[in-house]
Amino acid sequence: MNQREQMKGIIAEILAARKEKGGVKQIYFVGCGGSLGALYPPKNFMERESMTIKTGWISSNEFVHSTPKDFGENSVLVIACHKGNTPETIAAARLGREKGAAVIVLTWLEESEIIPYAEYPVFYTFGDNKDIAGEKTMCALYAAVELLQQTEGYENYDLFMEGAERIDGIVKRACKHVEKKAAAFAKEYKDDKVIYTMGSGAGYGAAYMESICIFMEMQWINSSSIHTGEFFHGPFEITDTEIPFLIQVSEGSTRPLDERALKFLKTYAKRIEVVDAKDLGLSTIDSKVVDYFNHSLFNNVYPVYNKALAAERQHPLTTRRYMWKVEY
Amino acid sequence: MNQREQMKGIIAEILAARKEKGGVKQIYFVGCGGSLGALYPPKNFMERESMTIKTGWISSNEFVHSTPKDFGENSVLVIACHKGNTPETIAAARLGREKGAAVIVLTWLEESEIIPYAEYPVFYTFGDNKDIAGEKTMCALYAAVELLQQTEGYENYDLFMEGAERIDGIVKRACKHVEKKAAAFAKEYKDDKVIYTMGSGAGYGAAYMESICIFMEMQWINSSSIHTGEFFHGPFEITDTEIPFLIQVSEGSTRPLDERALKFLKTYAKRIEVVDAKDLGLSTIDSKVVDYFNHSLFNNVYPVYNKALAAERQHPLTTRRYMWKVEY
Repeated sequence: MNQREQMKGIIAEILAARKEKGGVKQIYFVGCGGSLGALYPPKNFMERESMTIKTGWISSNEFVHSTPKDFGENSVLVIACHKGNTPETIAAARLGREKGAAVIVLTWLEESEIIPYAEYPVFYTFGDNKDIAGEKTMCALYAAVELLQQTEGYENYDLFMEGAERIDGIVKRACKHVEKKAAAFAKEYKDDKVIYTMGSGAGYGAAYMESICIFMEMQWINSSSIHTGEFFHGPFEITDTEIPFLIQVSEGSTRPLDERALKFLKTYAKRIEVVDAKDLGLSTIDSKVVDYFNHSLFNNVYPVYNKALAAERQHPLTTRRYMWKVEY
Repeated sequence: MNQREQMKGIIAEILAARKEKGGVKQIYFVGCGGSLGALYPPKNFMERESMTIKTGWISSNEFVHSTPKDFGENSVLVIACHKGNTPETIAAARLGREKGAAVIVLTWLEESEIIPYAEYPVFYTFGDNKDIAGEKTMCALYAAVELLQQTEGYENYDLFMEGAERIDGIVKRACKHVEKKAAAFAKEYKDDKVIYTMGSGAGYGAAYMESICIFMEMQWINSSSIHTGEFFHGPFEITDTEIPFLIQVSEGSTRPLDERALKFLKTYAKRIEVVDAKDLGLSTIDSKVVDYFNHSLFNNVYPVYNKALAAERQHPLTTRRYMWKVEY
């Protein structure tokens, strides 16, 4: 059974168990760092598409220390935890079980510390040749899409699932397509001390992840992920001909925001790397659902850039000075 | 009539007008840049405290291009627009009126382009000696607190209002208290090219604003606002003895997150500016509601730092190269 079918069954089971208890009223997406960023698209999906279900997207430790009052047996908690050993996220899962929430844990390893707290563990695809339709963000999207479909109904359900069938091919072609650009990017930016990422809409999480997990964590380059809609209300004043921007131009409803930011950059900046979802073939997915696939495209094209950058800088992506090494 | 009493009446009127139509089911906080940041505390308040009302916190242009499906006559739209002339925010207000939402506009000028779209204009205090209890963020919090109180009920309503009565005195004493520290900060960091801000909880918006509106916009210093809970899941790898951090240590539920990040910084960084809500007197507000006052404290203490920094750098806070000067 693939992740999509598995999630369909899990949501049905969660709803059935709560049928006499008021159903599902909230869905919380909780994780840390890259795992939190990967949950941004389903948060955006629920916020935009649901008429009645409350949604939250909260870093694990904040969720545990500052838990929303409504979190309990009418809640679904979707957690992402790659190796199942992040203490803050394990605490969030434990809290979920204590409160009677339905706890779905998206994870990679079949055995880990978080598994005992996972009412519904879902193992996502991972690694160089993974099926994109089964990866972390897609699994979380299936949870959101199924929850909406099985409660309020989702008019674009079939279109979404058609998109899910296409995303793997799109991503794999896109990765080939950017190879030369990524090599040039690595050469051009290898000595920079600051690189900004930019994005919007459901794809913003990919910009956040690239900024905090790759530039900051894995390359020790200063960074921030600027929302393209927020850019003109403060951040754009740092623009000059020296400072580099890696900008996502998404497909779907917020594309005009990205295009506007790009137009400004083309006028006042000089060092811009554009990752355009349209150029990368995302437009073959129906415009009614395409928003939610930007993340999986950008986030899975970035590794081509990241590997090239790490090689050029002779700073392997696995190098850490604190993570897993010191107490914190 | 002060802003607090005014908002109480506005919310009552909004609810009365929707009594036969299903009441209020959503509240959206919408603005751009600093105006969006200022709306973060009420977003956090609703997310944590409400059992039934959906909440969104969305940059104006994204809200207009990617409007949530449920936005309509059962929605309250709380907009912040300082001079009432931000085109994206005016468009959001216009959309709100078209959709039959209750449109509350928090603004400073009594006459501006946004006023015709403001079903409920609320003029907040602004300027050097403003009453903090009447400023933008407090007005938005009154909207949230009153909405909760007049629908589900809010058990800590009286405690919140007591806090609101104390915040002005706390902030004014805190501004005096940080004067010497702010002068030293300005001398120490005047030549830095990157300064990070850090925060968590309902006060995170203040870190966001300081980063995008002051460091980036008004001082052209690279910056990012790092959530103290996210810090250990990527960003902390950029920590070294050179890179500066301005960290908010909040009072309330997320203080342990901030303290943990500070402890790490004290071990591995050297250039840290701590703004601690406890030292600045916020603890006189009841612990059940203190979370929501961190923002007003931090955000109103920062101007002491900002003025000192601008003077030391001979870069006035009013200097712009693009904003209001070029087309964008």
